[in-house]
Amino acid sequence: MHYPEPISKLIDSFMKLPTIGPKTASRLAFFVLNMEEDTVLDFAKALVDAKRNIHFCSVCGHITDVDPCHICQDQSRDESMICVVQDPKDVIAMEKMRDYNGRYHVLHGAISPMDGVGPEDINVPSLLTRLQDERVQELILATNPTVEGEATAMYISRLVKPSGIKTTRIAHGLPVGGDLEYADEVTLSKAIEGRREL
Amino acid sequence: MHYPEPISKLIDSFMKLPTIGPKTASRLAFFVLNMEEDTVLDFAKALVDAKRNIHFCSVCGHITDVDPCHICQDQSRDESMICVVQDPKDVIAMEKMRDYNGRYHVLHGAISPMDGVGPEDINVPSLLTRLQDERVQELILATNPTVEGEATAMYISRLVKPSGIKTTRIAHGLPVGGDLEYADEVTLSKAIEGRREL
Repeated sequence: MHYPEPISKLIDSFMKLPTIGPKTASRLAFFVLNMEEDTVLDFAKALVDAKRNIHFCSVCGHITDVDPCHICQDQSRDESMICVVQDPKDVIAMEKMRDYNGRYHVLHGAISPMDGVGPEDINVPSLLTRLQDERVQELILATNPTVEGEATAMYISRLVKPSGIKTTRIAHGLPVGGDLEYADEVTLSKAIEGRREL
Repeated sequence: MHYPEPISKLIDSFMKLPTIGPKTASRLAFFVLNMEEDTVLDFAKALVDAKRNIHFCSVCGHITDVDPCHICQDQSRDESMICVVQDPKDVIAMEKMRDYNGRYHVLHGAISPMDGVGPEDINVPSLLTRLQDERVQELILATNPTVEGEATAMYISRLVKPSGIKTTRIAHGLPVGGDLEYADEVTLSKAIEGRREL
């Protein structure tokens, strides 16, 4: 017990966060001691509020403080397209891009038989329910370009095909600003495979 | 506004901490969403408790939740020695070492004319008051080996000398486990200067 009790408790709390070890935790705790009391109170309130008021949208599964979420409620968005992603953070990445004006569906994971995660364990059933709406014409599968993400995209695509809804997969290839020399073989192979006429 | 309000507020709070940028802040905020509610409440409580209950010891200036602090209250500690440090974290570093059994005095800074910090702006006056206690026989100046730390040590040493109290400065030299090849010139010069007969 080198630290007074209230500080060591705060250090322990910081250490529960990812990438924060004992040294960083103690630096952050000491920083908090020197912060304005109001700022610390706001921080504490923000923690509790975020935990208590953020839920998953009952329609698309995105994180939200209202239900359905703002995106699902927004009538100006194209209802004929649903972009399927693995994680709420992916929705935020897509929204930052500003190019997509359709709806989303967040799976909260990917199919991974190795980890015992099947289609029923992620938001696939609720996606199928949504697809019964006749307005949906295209499903953009934007799961991660990993083994699990690809498997999930393939699985959903096969499941949906009989219904006549178009399923598309986001393109794989070289990232913009990337260097051919440093690209891995798989990415390069996907880039060649997905080439388009100019 | 890509994030729901409660999350963006939490991200803003995390971003006020040092070394935490927007990406880390959003990762931490999403992590908090997936934490147990009790853990989050404990975290929020720890923040407020640390800010509200931690004060500076009225004797030595170390952080504490009781006054005087545990170290100042501890009768088994040697009252004839006071180790002068710049920061409460330095006390904790010294305590981890377990070799020192005297008292401390935390200056909360160092003299730095460039930044307009004079002896009156740090805990020097309270140190002089403590030195009037006749039990004090040695003052160990353990300020940092920087320009400001050295200047502060020199200043205090000159101030105290007439009173007949012994003032010592912690040794400078190569860190244990260090490599001569990579030591900077000043450290090496201090190591030679401070050589001792074996």
